[in-house]
Amino acid sequence: MSTVRCYDCGRSFAFPERKRCECGEPLWFDHGEVAWPDRRDPGMWRYADSLPAAAPAGVGAAAGGTPLVRAPRLDTGGVELYLKDEGQNPTGSFKDRGSALAVASARERGIDRVGTVSHGNMAMSTAACAAGAGLECTVCVPADIPEERLAHIARYGPEILRVEGEYGRLYERSLELEGVDFVNSDTPLRVAGQKTVAYEICEAFASDVPDAIVLPVSSGGQLSGIWKAILELRAAGLIDERPRLYASQASACDPIVRAFGADRREVSPIEGGETIAYSIANADPPSGNRALAALRDTDGGAVSVSDDAIRAAQRRLARKGGFRVEASSAVAYAGLERLLERGEIGAIRDVYKRQGSHSTR
Amino acid sequence: MSTVRCYDCGRSFAFPERKRCECGEPLWFDHGEVAWPDRRDPGMWRYADSLPAAAPAGVGAAAGGTPLVRAPRLDTGGVELYLKDEGQNPTGSFKDRGSALAVASARERGIDRVGTVSHGNMAMSTAACAAGAGLECTVCVPADIPEERLAHIARYGPEILRVEGEYGRLYERSLELEGVDFVNSDTPLRVAGQKTVAYEICEAFASDVPDAIVLPVSSGGQLSGIWKAILELRAAGLIDERPRLYASQASACDPIVRAFGADRREVSPIEGGETIAYSIANADPPSGNRALAALRDTDGGAVSVSDDAIRAAQRRLARKGGFRVEASSAVAYAGLERLLERGEIGAIRDVYKRQGSHSTR
Ligand SMILES: [Zn+2]
Ligand SMILES: [Zn+2]
Repeated sequence: MSTVRCYDCGRSFAFPERKRCECGEPLWFDHGEVAWPDRRDPGMWRYADSLPAAAPAGVGAAAGGTPLVRAPRLDTGGVELYLKDEGQNPTGSFKDRGSALAVASARERGIDRVGTVSHGNMAMSTAACAAGAGLECTVCVPADIPEERLAHIARYGPEILRVEGEYGRLYERSLELEGVDFVNSDTPLRVAGQKTVAYEICEAFASDVPDAIVLPVSSGGQLSGIWKAILELRAAGLIDERPRLYASQASACDPIVRAFGADRREVSPIEGGETIAYSIANADPPSGNRALAALRDTDGGAVSVSDDAIRAAQRRLARKGGFRVEASSAVAYAGLERLLERGEIGAIRDVYKRQGSHSTR
Repeated sequence: MSTVRCYDCGRSFAFPERKRCECGEPLWFDHGEVAWPDRRDPGMWRYADSLPAAAPAGVGAAAGGTPLVRAPRLDTGGVELYLKDEGQNPTGSFKDRGSALAVASARERGIDRVGTVSHGNMAMSTAACAAGAGLECTVCVPADIPEERLAHIARYGPEILRVEGEYGRLYERSLELEGVDFVNSDTPLRVAGQKTVAYEICEAFASDVPDAIVLPVSSGGQLSGIWKAILELRAAGLIDERPRLYASQASACDPIVRAFGADRREVSPIEGGETIAYSIANADPPSGNRALAALRDTDGGAVSVSDDAIRAAQRRLARKGGFRVEASSAVAYAGLERLLERGEIGAIRDVYKRQGSHSTR
């Protein structure tokens, strides 16, 4: 369980010595053949045999295991839609899967303190999982973070470092801190935790698969995790086909969509604009190239949506499905509608991934 | 599945003709012997064979199935504590179990519109489940409801009736509305939906059971549902013992605790005071007598806690478990601490029920 590999050049390294491959790409865990589990542990921990750590104590043990829901009133363009409600994680977002695993791994490795660079969902999730497992936690936030959001994070009792200057600087600042195990979006641990969402989706349909999975994309880490799970499940013969993966981004900040549209292999950083889906507005995504590889490998695609389309999707999700979601989550449904208009999706069964229920990053 | 029975005098009636027994007590559904299910439906719908309706479309299909979590840092007084995280329901509270079933039943009976009297969790839950299933919904709220909370409810598109005067008047007002199927806290449908939380807890330990279950109590409906499940599981021979049930209330409004302490069979309405746990401050609980019967029958107890104790419990749940809960939910943990001090609980394994994650009723 302690080998990490590069999806691109194939080099392997011991974990946790390296954070990135020599080629510059992010790494993911290698392990033996995946199998559908017999165990009945709560949430994602059903799949503990395919994860690099066992369930932590406290709230992290409650991560994952979210319902996959038919919402026929949200069907559109002949698509039979299922929603994976990631808002039903313990702190309300899909981040909990990665945070729980990162905290569990840190505990097993004898680490005292984990850290993260975030001022929203990821910060709350990491601080909560650390508290439950009895780890110290450091959260780097921008100096101008709104007080209400800071209060949310502070509830779990982490050390909070306010960093002056650009948000982008926070990541670099984090690397300067000694004695803290940082679990940012591109760590192999987060990707391993987040792959469990695709285990759950695929197990629900197995050995059949959904024709397509549409999800909001920010750093590319979640898309990477889903791709990884699909590769593992195919290799083990547990699913017949690969579902096509579709990345949806807000038009104001869509570097992955641009790179995919231009048929590039690498995502270039862009100058991102304002969007209501601010929590997925990542202008320089650390797992962007890997996300592109996932889209190509599965014959999927990428789509951008306007804030108006996001708002309309948000409204429709509440009124036709009963799902109240943050804007960044509605990006997936808006993306599906756009893909249907463009004729890129027209299949019978598709999955839309709800990202979270909060309105904070 | 269409017979409802009185827990007290045993009279039976056809559902949905009667809301209450001739003796004045609330009713619950009678059905055949309960069994552990083979089905793998999401959430509470695993138990559909023991429920009076099948899963509805939309968000209601995602109700229940919440994780039962070990949080050893919250263990206290020698108790091995498990938390049942009801905040991981689709709208963030345990109300979803009852709302989902009520909406499903209404749909099956050809009803167009459901309604509820609430300005918080129950209103959001009912409106969301109705939206997902394609039912109209009427929500009666007090005229002075805060705008922010009203906006939350309005997201799902229900008809909203603002009622002038006392909150207690809302219930009576609801009975005057024609063509609306009201699903308030004491309807047999809510109790049937809410019993699934105890199916889940007991199935996780079966055939063993937790020694005690401590929960916040307001109307008494949730406690009734848990008791009902335990009676059914015992009758079917699926559990060896009855867990002791403990009701916890805020000192400022604790009519059930007072009645239990005075060894009365009936709860008398009280003049309730202010408490931060306002969402469980029910001064005249419609299922109060049934709640007392549940406590007596299981050799359980009742306890009141101060707002200071609730705040301390809330803080401890976040810092030692990673659980951010509303005050009314922390009432259970505060109650457990008080019961330990009084020597009423000292067993090895106990369950604390987290009620919801919101801070609104
Ligand atoms: Zn490489
Ligand atoms: Zn009766």
